[in-house]
Amino acid sequence: MTSAPASPVLRLNSRDNVAVALRDVPSGTALPDGLTAGEGIPSGHKVALVPIAPGEPVLKYGQIIGVATAEIPAGAHVHVQNLGMGDHDRDYAFGAAATPLPEAGAPASFRGFHRPSGRVGTRNYIGILTSVNCSGSVARFIAREAERSGLLDAFPNVDGIVPIVHGTGCGMSGKGEGYQTLFRTLAGYGHNPNFGAILMVGLGCEVMQISDLVDRQVLKDSARFRYMTIQGSGGTPASIERGLAVLRELAAEADKAVREEAPASALVLGMQCGGSDGYSGITANPALGHASDLLVRQGGISILSETSEIYGAEHLLTRRAVDEPTGRKLIDLIDWWEDYTARNFGEMDNNPSPGNKRGGLTTILEKSLGAVAKGGTAPLAGVYKYGEPIDRPGFVFMDSPGYDPCSVTGQTASGANLIAFTTGRGSVSGYQPVPCIKIASNSELFRRMEPDMDVDCGTILAGETIEGKGQEIFDLMLRIASGEESKSEAQGFGEVEFVPWQIGAVM
Amino acid sequence: MTSAPASPVLRLNSRDNVAVALRDVPSGTALPDGLTAGEGIPSGHKVALVPIAPGEPVLKYGQIIGVATAEIPAGAHVHVQNLGMGDHDRDYAFGAAATPLPEAGAPASFRGFHRPSGRVGTRNYIGILTSVNCSGSVARFIAREAERSGLLDAFPNVDGIVPIVHGTGCGMSGKGEGYQTLFRTLAGYGHNPNFGAILMVGLGCEVMQISDLVDRQVLKDSARFRYMTIQGSGGTPASIERGLAVLRELAAEADKAVREEAPASALVLGMQCGGSDGYSGITANPALGHASDLLVRQGGISILSETSEIYGAEHLLTRRAVDEPTGRKLIDLIDWWEDYTARNFGEMDNNPSPGNKRGGLTTILEKSLGAVAKGGTAPLAGVYKYGEPIDRPGFVFMDSPGYDPCSVTGQTASGANLIAFTTGRGSVSGYQPVPCIKIASNSELFRRMEPDMDVDCGTILAGETIEGKGQEIFDLMLRIASGEESKSEAQGFGEVEFVPWQIGAVM
Ligand SMILES: [Ca+2]
Ligand SMILES: [Ca+2]
Ligand SMILES: [Ca+2]
Ligand SMILES: [Ca+2]
Ligand SMILES: [Ca+2]
Repeated sequence: MTSAPASPVLRLNSRDNVAVALRDVPSGTALPDGLTAGEGIPSGHKVALVPIAPGEPVLKYGQIIGVATAEIPAGAHVHVQNLGMGDHDRDYAFGAAATPLPEAGAPASFRGFHRPSGRVGTRNYIGILTSVNCSGSVARFIAREAERSGLLDAFPNVDGIVPIVHGTGCGMSGKGEGYQTLFRTLAGYGHNPNFGAILMVGLGCEVMQISDLVDRQVLKDSARFRYMTIQGSGGTPASIERGLAVLRELAAEADKAVREEAPASALVLGMQCGGSDGYSGITANPALGHASDLLVRQGGISILSETSEIYGAEHLLTRRAVDEPTGRKLIDLIDWWEDYTARNFGEMDNNPSPGNKRGGLTTILEKSLGAVAKGGTAPLAGVYKYGEPIDRPGFVFMDSPGYDPCSVTGQTASGANLIAFTTGRGSVSGYQPVPCIKIASNSELFRRMEPDMDVDCGTILAGETIEGKGQEIFDLMLRIASGEESKSEAQGFGEVEFVPWQIGAVM
Repeated sequence: MTSAPASPVLRLNSRDNVAVALRDVPSGTALPDGLTAGEGIPSGHKVALVPIAPGEPVLKYGQIIGVATAEIPAGAHVHVQNLGMGDHDRDYAFGAAATPLPEAGAPASFRGFHRPSGRVGTRNYIGILTSVNCSGSVARFIAREAERSGLLDAFPNVDGIVPIVHGTGCGMSGKGEGYQTLFRTLAGYGHNPNFGAILMVGLGCEVMQISDLVDRQVLKDSARFRYMTIQGSGGTPASIERGLAVLRELAAEADKAVREEAPASALVLGMQCGGSDGYSGITANPALGHASDLLVRQGGISILSETSEIYGAEHLLTRRAVDEPTGRKLIDLIDWWEDYTARNFGEMDNNPSPGNKRGGLTTILEKSLGAVAKGGTAPLAGVYKYGEPIDRPGFVFMDSPGYDPCSVTGQTASGANLIAFTTGRGSVSGYQPVPCIKIASNSELFRRMEPDMDVDCGTILAGETIEGKGQEIFDLMLRIASGEESKSEAQGFGEVEFVPWQIGAVM
């Protein structure tokens, strides 16, 4: 451990005209270069290092995060009162910065469940997947009764029974992007390697018909996938009884799986941030970015998402695209999002939440730059729709809202078998069947919510390197993938966080 | 019990040119008036009683349900292959049919929980209300721990602890109709009289801030309402501990309530249909409509909803409006819905689900006419937004999607203390904290799913009167309101069916 740096503020790049307060800085505090804090700067917020005139760009990470909307004296607090969005330059420069990473020195591995599909699970759950909210209670009843009756006692290799319950599946159009998005999500859960077997339960009369998944050969009746409807089974008690009988068969099948050596290239990492603060972009996200690079160097897959949160910083990703079509896909997504929010009377700038703003993030640009830091430095190998299967190795982007449970749900549908989640304000959540590693951006949060946090990146502020922290995260990823419980798993999180992206009218 | 009618088909109105099959009618079956079934007519589906030329209206309930899209011979099956939507006449005739019902002969009553607000609960639950999905798991952990520790053992008047968990609350705009709709929903649950006390739990950094509800004095810290955030409490274990301590205080307060005599006028009935079939509109819905009339005659409130399902039949309601402004409110809702669905690339005709169509409902008009039958014959006293408090007695309309859990959630937020739910295909669901009565449209369903169904309206096809069945439903309503368990309550439904209407972009 090195000692805390003397300066109470941190300049992230030599081009910057603002610095970030590393703790609450009272008015009158001496800052570097003879500067004095002209007013109180809350921890995580920005202070002007030089006078900034109205209309002048404000720079952080060496990048424009907005323009001054008022005269800002040196030493002043820079936030919503004097910083806003301006027009910003977008040079996509497709592929200009797609520099392949060096190959890994030594191969890394974990112990996982090899599936017939070739994918590898980090857990071996039995899922009870639901097509519609109307079958959610019965799915839970089946799981509860299985637990009460000790159904899994004879199947020690099965990690548990996980009902996957949600709020949609009917009262929606049976065609169009809303339906297709839910269809991909359910199909993707059906194929996620963290399930050793799946029972799918519908009501019967819903818009999202299980038979549509089966008839299109997306999910097939097999020793590992079975389905039923409540109406077809004759109501609740009959469905529970039938469900338990099917579960016994599925458990016998799932129990055949045992952990075996698997290369790190079999890891599919969903990256996520939620409840960001001013530290997220300077500690936890860059550290996770380094871990992502380590995984990509091993031949694994690392998924960045949260399209609404990279808005304004998409040119950083297009420069890294492996080719122009890949970069254009990202821009097409951005265009879709502008239309999506506009037709819903929204705007793309409203994304920093009240909590984000209290934490010191002023504009979506600033937040986006911090969010993109999670993506490390690898070339952008692919761009995918929400829940679309990821079909190539490397660093990829999957479209999703920034909203945590919704974004992780898409990543899991796309095949993620591990989630890494950075947070500054403190998020408590889990995402069955996929383990989630919580990465705190600051040590105060880590100490305050220690039972919820797996990694403390606040040590970076005390001198630990980004690279060292990234290696620590990567090593933990391998251990968690091999069966070690993450903090959120140990507490039993994940029963309510399946939130498919609902697009379109509820009818 | 009268014997089954000789005819296998039922004409609902003397003007009709189609009849409804009361059972599967094989090709060649003799029908009334010398007619023969020219092809198989599935149970609940329609058969042409006379030849119908292309473009000619098809009449059921004495009303136009669409126009022939092909030549239809007498005895033919009338469905999607030869019946479609045409232009239909809309004469709103505001108030033309607003005939007050006669006052009730004898006053009816039930035994409920009188609240300080003047409302009366039919149950006495403690709610754990969540502002965002991100606090949902912790709300469940608190409830589970309370159950495990026997926290309620000392408080026999409390019916249980109910976590109210959902998929939204962040990743959304902090202003506009989406936010306001969720705000009303949470506020409404906070005031629902079926809660003796409420603990509200947030994460802390979400868009839907508890402090917004409290600062606007919509919910107030009191002996019956307390709130906390997970971030403010220091993470999961600390939040559970704090939550349990608060629950003990709330339980002591809620336990003071005991059931006392209350007039039927204190009942607020949310009416609902889901998984409709060809019988819904001719048995269960008219019977519920009669029960609704009985309640209105007692001075109670009866709520019709599901705007998308009355679409095309709104002129039946505007004629019953107590005045023109009330009728115009309904038309304004319809206009809003046309825009809502259009901007989401949807259309209002897509509402009969695959299950509805298999059950014999062809067009939205036909379905709407059947749905409106639930509303009986009382004047339309008011029109409300989703989740808006109902502030006058009588038969009213509350805007909502047809999607069952979403619609019931709105009715509960608007103050419903009882739900009556008709179904033809068989719905299994419950809506804590409000008891739900399931009303089967046909006896085959009632027998097949008897543990889920409270009332069999199939007896109407065997000669029982609509009025007699309506009285039976009304009498059951009073018993359920007084504490008798409905079928769905007895099975423990209601943990996953809180589905606030999510309007707008997920971000
Ligand atoms: Ca966000
Ligand atoms: Ca997020
Ligand atoms: Ca009791
Ligand atoms: Ca519907
Ligand atoms: Ca409905």
